[in-house]
Order: sequence, then C-alpha cells, then structure tokens
Amino acid sequence: MRRLHLNAFLLGVGHHEAAWRTARADPAAVLDVEHYRHLARVAERGTFDSVFLADKLSTGHAARHNVLTMLEPTVLLAALASATSRIGLIATLSTGFDEPYHVARRLLTLDHVSGGRAGWNVVTSYSDAEARNFGADRVDEHDRRYRRAAEFVDVVRALWDSWEVGAFVHDRHDGVFADVERVHDLHHRGEFFRVDGALTAPRSRQGHPLLVQAGASPTGRDFAAGRADAVFTAHQTLADARAFRTDLRARAARAGRDPDDVVVLPGIVPIVGATEAAARARAAELDELVVTDYALRQLENLVGRDLSGLPLDGPLPDLPAPGEHRGAQGRLELITRLARDEGLTIRGILGRLAGGRGHLVVVGTPEHVADVMAGWFTAGGADGFNVMAAELPAGLEDFVEGVVPELRRRGLHRDHYDADTLRGHYGLASHSRGGASR
Amino acid sequence: MRRLHLNAFLLGVGHHEAAWRTARADPAAVLDVEHYRHLARVAERGTFDSVFLADKLSTGHAARHNVLTMLEPTVLLAALASATSRIGLIATLSTGFDEPYHVARRLLTLDHVSGGRAGWNVVTSYSDAEARNFGADRVDEHDRRYRRAAEFVDVVRALWDSWEVGAFVHDRHDGVFADVERVHDLHHRGEFFRVDGALTAPRSRQGHPLLVQAGASPTGRDFAAGRADAVFTAHQTLADARAFRTDLRARAARAGRDPDDVVVLPGIVPIVGATEAAARARAAELDELVVTDYALRQLENLVGRDLSGLPLDGPLPDLPAPGEHRGAQGRLELITRLARDEGLTIRGILGRLAGGRGHLVVVGTPEHVADVMAGWFTAGGADGFNVMAAELPAGLEDFVEGVVPELRRRGLHRDHYDADTLRGHYGLASHSRGGASR
Repeated sequence: MRRLHLNAFLLGVGHHEAAWRTARADPAAVLDVEHYRHLARVAERGTFDSVFLADKLSTGHAARHNVLTMLEPTVLLAALASATSRIGLIATLSTGFDEPYHVARRLLTLDHVSGGRAGWNVVTSYSDAEARNFGADRVDEHDRRYRRAAEFVDVVRALWDSWEVGAFVHDRHDGVFADVERVHDLHHRGEFFRVDGALTAPRSRQGHPLLVQAGASPTGRDFAAGRADAVFTAHQTLADARAFRTDLRARAARAGRDPDDVVVLPGIVPIVGATEAAARARAAELDELVVTDYALRQLENLVGRDLSGLPLDGPLPDLPAPGEHRGAQGRLELITRLARDEGLTIRGILGRLAGGRGHLVVVGTPEHVADVMAGWFTAGGADGFNVMAAELPAGLEDFVEGVVPELRRRGLHRDHYDADTLRGHYGLASHSRGGASR
Repeated sequence: MRRLHLNAFLLGVGHHEAAWRTARADPAAVLDVEHYRHLARVAERGTFDSVFLADKLSTGHAARHNVLTMLEPTVLLAALASATSRIGLIATLSTGFDEPYHVARRLLTLDHVSGGRAGWNVVTSYSDAEARNFGADRVDEHDRRYRRAAEFVDVVRALWDSWEVGAFVHDRHDGVFADVERVHDLHHRGEFFRVDGALTAPRSRQGHPLLVQAGASPTGRDFAAGRADAVFTAHQTLADARAFRTDLRARAARAGRDPDDVVVLPGIVPIVGATEAAARARAAELDELVVTDYALRQLENLVGRDLSGLPLDGPLPDLPAPGEHRGAQGRLELITRLARDEGLTIRGILGRLAGGRGHLVVVGTPEHVADVMAGWFTAGGADGFNVMAAELPAGLEDFVEGVVPELRRRGLHRDHYDADTLRGHYGLASHSRGGASR
C-alpha cells in the first residue's frame, strides 16, 4: 500500500522563530554537532526517509534575533553519516554562486561516505546579500536563475554519469585501476558553464544522489517536474496542496516522467501535546516570545517592501505582482493570499508566519496531527511531509514518540527500513547511466 | 624540549604508486569511509598532530594505472571527525576555482564539527585539465595564481575574523541571538574578489583553522612565510632540507613573523621492516609492480615535456627553466637535480619518483627510520615530518607500531596529547581577532 514519506527538516533549535528563547532550548546547540547527531538519530528511530539541512550564504541584521543557518550542509551532514545507518541526508546547495564540478563532487563524496544516502536540495538563491558575497551586485532575474540552475543540475547529473557502472575495475593483476574507456569526458559548453572532463570518482550504490527542489513559481514547478525526485512545498490549506500536487504531477507527465517518481512533501510544523490544551499552551508560549521587530524585517524581505512606520494593526501595503518580484514567488503568493483572502493585518500575518514561515502549523494531540497528515495524504494533497518541528530536539522527539506510532498504527508509515539508500526509501530505483533503470 | 610534529598524509591505499597492486592491498578501500576512519584512528594512536588529504579537480588517463584522489576532502574529513577526538584534520582546497566565502564556511564548519581540529592546505592548482572543468582553457600563470591565492586566503581569514569573540551571545531573556554590532561586514573589493558581508557563523574554539602550504618557488615560499602555520615540502637530502628551512624561516622573519610559528614538514616515505632485508624486500616488491607507461606520463606532467619515443635508459631532454614552467616549480627543480647532478636516466628517475613522487624514501628498520628523522630534526632540516606511508593501512600501522615508540623513547615525540585543537598540537595559540593573541 501507499505510505507516507517523512523528511525531518533540521533547523537550529527549532523552526518556530522564538524556539531558541524558551527555557527548554539550548541556543548554543546550533553550533554543536552532537545536537545534530541526536536529531538525526531521533529521526532514524522514527524511520524517517531523510533529514534535511537548509542553507543561506549571507548573514545580517536578522542574526540579532533569530537562529540562522550557520554551518555548511554537506560538511555537517557528513559528520552525521556515521551516527546513523539508514536515514537519508539531504543538503541544500545553491546553483547561484558555485561550480557544477564542485557540487557534483561534494554530493558524491557525501553519497560515498554515507553508503548511498545523499540528497541535494537545489536552490537558486534569490537574495542580493548573498550575491554580494560572491562578486555580484545582485542576483540574476528569476528566469535566468532557473536557466542557470537547469544547466547546473544537468551538468552535475552528467558528471555523476561520467563513470559507467563497472568502470572502477581495480584489477591488481593487470595493473588496471580504472577502465578509462568507460570514463567519459563531458565536453560540456553551455550558456553558463564549460566542463570538459569526467568526475574524479565513480558513482555510489544509489547511482545518483536524490534531487529535491522547492520552487513554487511556474518556472520552478517546471524545473521540479522535469528534474526533481522530491519537492518541498508550503501550503496553508488542503485545497492549495491538492491543486499544487495535481499541477506538479501533470507537469511531470508532460515532461515525459512517471508522476509517481516525484514525491510531493508539504511542510508541516507540528506542535504536539498530550492534550489539546497542553499543545495550545506550548504554541502560545512560543508565540509570546517572538521579537516583533525581527519578524517585521523578515516579512519585508519576503514581500520586497519597506514596512517601517506602518501600523501593525493595519493592512499590508499593495504587494508586488509575481512578475516584478525578484524573491521567492511562492512565499509572496502565500502572503498575498493571507492579506487579501483572509484580511489579516500585518500583526496577524506575523503571527501566522512565526511558527513555520508560511508552512502549515498543526497544534494538538498526536492523534490530531496524524489525522491532519492522513487527511492530506489520502485526499491527494501530499505524498508525505517535510516535518519542521517547532522546537528541536523536543518537537522532533514528541513527533517520533507520539505521532509516528499513531501513523504506524494506521498503516501509513513504515516501522522498519526496507531499503538502505535514500533513493530506495523514496521508492526510486538506483540511477544507472542514462537513467535507463528508473 | 623541542619535539617532532607528525602529519599523516592519507592517500588511497598508499603513496607508492603500485601500492594498490600488492596482495595486501584492498584497492576498493579508496572509496570506503571505514578505510579512512581506520587510518585516522591509527594515526591518533600514534599521537600524530594531524591527518591530511590532498586533492585534484580532474581525472584522466592516469586513472588507468593508479589510485587518484577521488573524494572531496572537507566532506570526507567531516566523516572522520567523529571517529577521532584529538587529531587534526587538514583538507586541501584550491584557490584556483572556488570562492573565499564557500571555502571559509566549509573549513569553519569542519572546525566546528571537529571541535577545533580543522586545517587548510592551500593550493593554487597548476593543471590545465583542472581549469577546463571550471570554464577556463588553462590555469593562470604562476605569479597571478599566487596573487589570487594571497587575496583568497586574506579574505578567508577576514571572514573567520568577522565575528568577534563573544559576538554569539544567545541571550534568551533579551531575545538577542547574536550581537550584530560585533559581527563585521568585510566590504572587500580586491583584484579577484568582492565579498561584502560577514560569515554566517562565529569562530570555533581554535579561532582559525590551521593554514598549510606547500609552494617551493620563491613566490610560493614568500606566500608560505607570510601566511602559513605549517609547510609541506619535498627534499632528497638533508642539505636541501636545511637550506629550504633556513630560507623559509628567514622569509618569515622578514615578513614580521616569529620563524618558530612556521612548522616545516618534509615528506618522508617510510618502508619499514623488522630487518633491513625485510624492508628492502618490501620496497623491491612495490617497485616491481610499477606500470612504466603510467609513471612516464606522470613524469611528463611534472616536467611539462613530451617524453614519448625517448629511450628509457637515456637522459631526460632539456627541461624548462623555472620561469617558463607553468606547473609546480619545486618538483621540476627536484627532477632537474636528479637528472643533472645525479645523472639519472629516465628509468632511474621513474624509480626514484615511484615511492613518493620526489619525497624522501627511507627503507629499513624502525630504528633506522627514527635515526633519519632524528638526524634531519636535530640538524635543522625539519620541525617534523609529513609521513607518507608507501602502503595504507599497513605502512602507517608499521610506522605507529615501530617508529613511533622509537621516537618516543628518544623523547622526540609526544606519548599523549597535551592540546585538544590542531593549532594547539602545532604549538600555536588560538587565533583571536586580528591575531593579537598569537
């Protein structure tokens, strides 16, 4: 039967922006590898498909009030590989300021050191602050970013394919370490990149690392439909989630792929309590610790408007149309909808975003959280979930101890791993040269 | 008293180019993280200061006959961090095709996940095959490569300094995660790079990762003397080693540094046996397994000349002067010396290079190896050694079980770690902002 896929999104000491301020939190843990090792082990106990690290290539005033993504994902995940044995390890790497050869190698190395458990969340980077750390004044416009990303990913995949299966012969007797006739130079020359050679290492046991994407714009959806194995997405309602998944599957089919090979994972921020009242109390405690000034600046970044001086209890100003907005279009669309369809004030929007930056926040008992997940799953809104615990480690522990057994009881989640690669967990075949075996 | 510093250079299944062909070797281990974990643990048992991984950003025909550097060093070393607790972890990263912001972050992340044990071997990359994987036809000329490297390293160090000590306050009560007044933007604009912002993470407990360099040209020596904490070098004779170390220390003093803050580590390829005869037999076994065709191509790369069609028992053709040579000048100089001063034929040079690519090969009992090391150390030719075991793991195990106890007996090597950071092992203070505490 069809089962849920679960990814644990690990972010500092929790996704709620005030999580680090509770008495339960240890904010210094954001730099402590043991914290992340513990989280990965907890997720593995919950037989999650994968853990995932986001990334951001700049810092700034936001660091004043919130935990940022501080450490580099591939290096941190490699340190988690030995603390775990089955769970997938998905790193965010931007196509905006890096080289395909570097990215292909780092991910393949992560894949080798983890025994075939690496994944890549492909992001294009939309912040000018990031661009200014890499020689540019600003990021490219939206479509050009995606053109670059598409070429980048295609080159990385070609590099992963540059060693045929079996090219690594290491024949001691004849002194043939690699069969170089089966190691193929790329001779790639595209709009953005030139890469002549083959990669330095043969493929891992899962063939290719898993590809994840989270674009919500039409361009982003086509990118995901054409190339991604899994898609992270953010929706406030089941109706939106169904519409997105239906659209993405249709795009995948139009791209000549089996829609079942694209796993759609909406984000969910579970705030779990033994009783509904306990869960609500915890959510309220977190919301009260939010620093409004910080939240406002984050909202400014998301919508590309200066909000200073505006009354918090008044409406948002007119927002840019998706076409004029250089930031993340999916998030802008979501906020536009909160302001227009739900009529929320600026303060109301801040409250809605604090828990999970626009992802669905579900507050309640384990049974309630499982109900919501099962509802989205069976109604076609999700193939699984990107689980964004409000507090870490507590929220992930609560989820694994409370919600996971409930999902297992309903037959919706595995109770042991059947596969030992990340592609295997997501029900995808090992990726051989040319993708023939998929 | 002054003691040796020891670095274990981990390269596939051994530094001898035929090591992978013996019955003892497991060539598939070059892709197996457990192999590297074992090596790091063996080196830690020998209280080495550090382990070190080289790198190469291309593959090619050479893969036919020899183990290449296949995996990316920072990711692989992160996977070794949890298998060890004290030993330093030094990654090679090239300044030729990367961005300072990326490199600073990856190394700082390795530093955090290892508790202050990261180091960076700075290389400039001199092969056109590498350049062609990163959009260029060929590498820059020598001086420009070093100018780029200097700016690159200076930006990386400035990024490591961008968070003042104590800027990471994580004050839950007042909601101040980081004191952004003590996080400093770089506003760097140089010949090669523009980096506006601060790094995403505060410094680790050792302040800065250790900087290692291996340039042998006058430009490379000045670079090392001005910036490196440790220097890898290759010499065939004590006289050459002394001359190099004396020169490097003088350059460090001229650059305003304490010469004792630059640790000079010549490479040594120990081939150890219980008796001299046993050691010689092992060395002969390895040499007999060399694939001449492969060795010849490596020599061609080193000297920048086509050697095909030349008699193996005849002399090398005239070699380029250092000024016209775009490759590694130190290695060219060494080969020129072997050909001119020792009058070796091409075959003779191949034999001399097979064991350690120009590094000193010492064949004999543990006592003999310790004698040579002690001799170089006390005569001012070395502050320690870059130990390049001919076979891995066997050669490193032999060294740790045979040579290390001998060095300890003579009071030349620690029997336990006094420090718990890489800088500490090399006798360097933690690096605070501006280097004031050094």
